[in-house]
Amino acid sequence: MREAYYDELEGVFDDLAEITKMVEEAVQSATQALLTGDAELAERVISADAAIDSRREKVENDAFNLLSLQQPVARDLRTIVAALRMVSELERMGDLAEHVAKVARLRVPGLAVPETLRPTMTRMSTIALEMVGRLRVVITDRDVSAAARLAEIDEEMDKLRRLNFTELLRADWSHGVEAAVDVALLGRYYERLADHAVAVANRVVYVVTGDFPVAGV
Amino acid sequence: MREAYYDELEGVFDDLAEITKMVEEAVQSATQALLTGDAELAERVISADAAIDSRREKVENDAFNLLSLQQPVARDLRTIVAALRMVSELERMGDLAEHVAKVARLRVPGLAVPETLRPTMTRMSTIALEMVGRLRVVITDRDVSAAARLAEIDEEMDKLRRLNFTELLRADWSHGVEAAVDVALLGRYYERLADHAVAVANRVVYVVTGDFPVAGV
Repeated sequence: MREAYYDELEGVFDDLAEITKMVEEAVQSATQALLTGDAELAERVISADAAIDSRREKVENDAFNLLSLQQPVARDLRTIVAALRMVSELERMGDLAEHVAKVARLRVPGLAVPETLRPTMTRMSTIALEMVGRLRVVITDRDVSAAARLAEIDEEMDKLRRLNFTELLRADWSHGVEAAVDVALLGRYYERLADHAVAVANRVVYVVTGDFPVAGV
Repeated sequence: MREAYYDELEGVFDDLAEITKMVEEAVQSATQALLTGDAELAERVISADAAIDSRREKVENDAFNLLSLQQPVARDLRTIVAALRMVSELERMGDLAEHVAKVARLRVPGLAVPETLRPTMTRMSTIALEMVGRLRVVITDRDVSAAARLAEIDEEMDKLRRLNFTELLRADWSHGVEAAVDVALLGRYYERLADHAVAVANRVVYVVTGDFPVAGV
């Protein structure tokens, strides 16, 4: 009975790592669809989001059953409560990747991101993807130091977001309002992806150490 | 002991209603600051967000202690798990109100929303505020039918968001890129506020009935 319980607790974390992998694939494909104008790939990201949602439901049900049947305390309780919060943020990250794919789809056969903003947007998407990849490692290995690194990388994302705004608001902007709105929203989606990655990583730190690395996260 | 337990369980819901009231005030003040260019009011909303964050921490601690010390099952367990999810969404709603206040502050002494877009943006903010107010009633009275009404109102928000985009992307847009970006992001913030209000209300329905009104929310 106890052994099965620990397997289940471990299983919840395996599911979280698996969902993070699904999110990683969604961010990668959505970004590729965005930068190449690949409508079919965008469509696949949008359809695949349902699988993330249903996996989230599984984690919620498993966590609830563990709470209900095993009445865990102390660290196990902390782990399950954290898992419930993490899965909710991971699902939200999947939604954000879907939003990116929807912007891509909307502009096909054109591209949402004008040539001059491509370097910054590409960098933002690369960082978002890297953060999700690192988050997967944080979850899989319960690696507290890797979690701290995520917060550092997020600072670069914040700088890029400001650069993105500066580029948009240059006096010689010539790509029209539609492109400006697309790029501003895309910047927001990638920034939020990064924020969620940091928040989820901080929850792993909490599970391992009992403390949050950053107040209020 | 048991009586104190039920008081604490009730207390968590009282806290949630109180946080919702704080969010309501934040949305109201942020919107007023936005539409009048009141920097001082915007500043107050930004400072007040810390109080929402710390109230959230209190709810998390109380919920965790209830789980740990009382080992609730069935409906009580459902209630506490739901409260943990709700408080996280309510805090996020506070952040969104803060984002609105920050856009307002950034454009002082000017106004972020150009005259022609004021009616739609005013309507969006009014609906967001109405939804938060109704959410407070849903939480206070555990009113399932009032929760269903929220989802209906949210449909109007979605229509307004589309109208907001149509207005932005009119060929004769003359307010520049900065205003377009501001308005697109503001539209997103109000839309997300409404989405969160529906999601939190659905969690109340879940607590009362044991079922979610909408799949996957």
